[in-house]
Amino acid sequence: MTTNTDDATDDETNSDDDFEEYADLGATTSNAMDIAETSMDRVRELVPDETLADRIRQKSVHATGDPEFQYLMRFTGADDDEPVSAGARAVLDEQPIVTDITMVKAGITGRGHDCPVKKAIGNGAELAAETGMTRTAASVLELDKQGVYDGAIAVVGNAPTAALALADCIEDGTRPAVVVATPVGFVKAAESRERLRKVAAEHGVPTITNVGRRGGSGLAAGLTNELVHVASDVREGTVSLDD
Amino acid sequence: MTTNTDDATDDETNSDDDFEEYADLGATTSNAMDIAETSMDRVRELVPDETLADRIRQKSVHATGDPEFQYLMRFTGADDDEPVSAGARAVLDEQPIVTDITMVKAGITGRGHDCPVKKAIGNGAELAAETGMTRTAASVLELDKQGVYDGAIAVVGNAPTAALALADCIEDGTRPAVVVATPVGFVKAAESRERLRKVAAEHGVPTITNVGRRGGSGLAAGLTNELVHVASDVREGTVSLDD
Repeated sequence: MTTNTDDATDDETNSDDDFEEYADLGATTSNAMDIAETSMDRVRELVPDETLADRIRQKSVHATGDPEFQYLMRFTGADDDEPVSAGARAVLDEQPIVTDITMVKAGITGRGHDCPVKKAIGNGAELAAETGMTRTAASVLELDKQGVYDGAIAVVGNAPTAALALADCIEDGTRPAVVVATPVGFVKAAESRERLRKVAAEHGVPTITNVGRRGGSGLAAGLTNELVHVASDVREGTVSLDD
Repeated sequence: MTTNTDDATDDETNSDDDFEEYADLGATTSNAMDIAETSMDRVRELVPDETLADRIRQKSVHATGDPEFQYLMRFTGADDDEPVSAGARAVLDEQPIVTDITMVKAGITGRGHDCPVKKAIGNGAELAAETGMTRTAASVLELDKQGVYDGAIAVVGNAPTAALALADCIEDGTRPAVVVATPVGFVKAAESRERLRKVAAEHGVPTITNVGRRGGSGLAAGLTNELVHVASDVREGTVSLDD
């Protein structure tokens, strides 16, 4: 339960001290564990600690260093907890975690799961060249053609066009287990997440996103790592998921 | 002038559409270029566009999606522009870019420079095990022993303890060309940057940092990519650096 089975080397996945931005899971040395613990303790003073969705809200604050971020998180599904349950279940089922870009993939913890970790970027170069669409959008469409997103944890940390492409795929029948999408920026970022929430809600795909222009790769990786963390707690019997 | 000479594969460095978070440099397809251009245009409506330091302030807003971030940036040196000049000069001199963790390295553009891109993490494991210090802090001390930080662009995006270790190295005589440090979080992050500014100012090392708890890997990568961008403009003759 400790290694990725995909092409990520140990070196490429989170190393032990990458905790501050996205995973206390990763802390192993004593100083690192102290800092990670104190850090999450401080976050828990600022964010409710009642529900599974609260875990994600906490992680958003932890990853951004900003207590206000908890109010920017959005959840679609039967209730706010559903996308978190669905994500943890997908982790336990060893479904692939598919990120948009390398930087997000590099932020996904290598511990606590046996999910292959893939990235979209690098696929679909021809489609991008032919159509002029962005390479990340083309890469999402290309992976989708291969069926990679069905049942997967689909993560978009960077490119609004990847989030828009993923929304198109869902409209066309693709069913990720959960979508985590936090693209950042001034053009299309907020709109891409809004469209993703709308399309996903119509088609019963649970999503974890935020509102506004903020977001980014570190946040997306952190939220995804929290799904891994919840799955670990389920495995250890300290959290149970509703059926 | 387009490839890294280090161990980073093309795949590992920024690909064309990683623009939204950290580099308009990276956009090559027509949609991507449109978005990147519009996005920086919007940023320029919100942030002054007079000085080299303004370029870094603009990039901080671009990377975080938050106009307020421009007010959180800090510069140490003879003036606010000095760390930007020093960074651009180091890029032109093909000095190494040394990041704390893999995620930051993954965010450094592969275009517009011939600097080797290295990461600290993965070094100093024994020191960490022996002392209980964090692995990133140990990795910085280990690389410093090898002389890697002298003349380099030293980048810390994630771990406060790496920033603190780097401050110790500077106190002990190490002289990076410039330090870019934006570790995020509730424990030691702001303090580590404050200490870095103080020590660096005492020893004449230019720094680009921020105040407050926010920050992160995407921001650090974006700011570093902006140094590359300034260097490209110098090469093309649209920007000149004072001596």
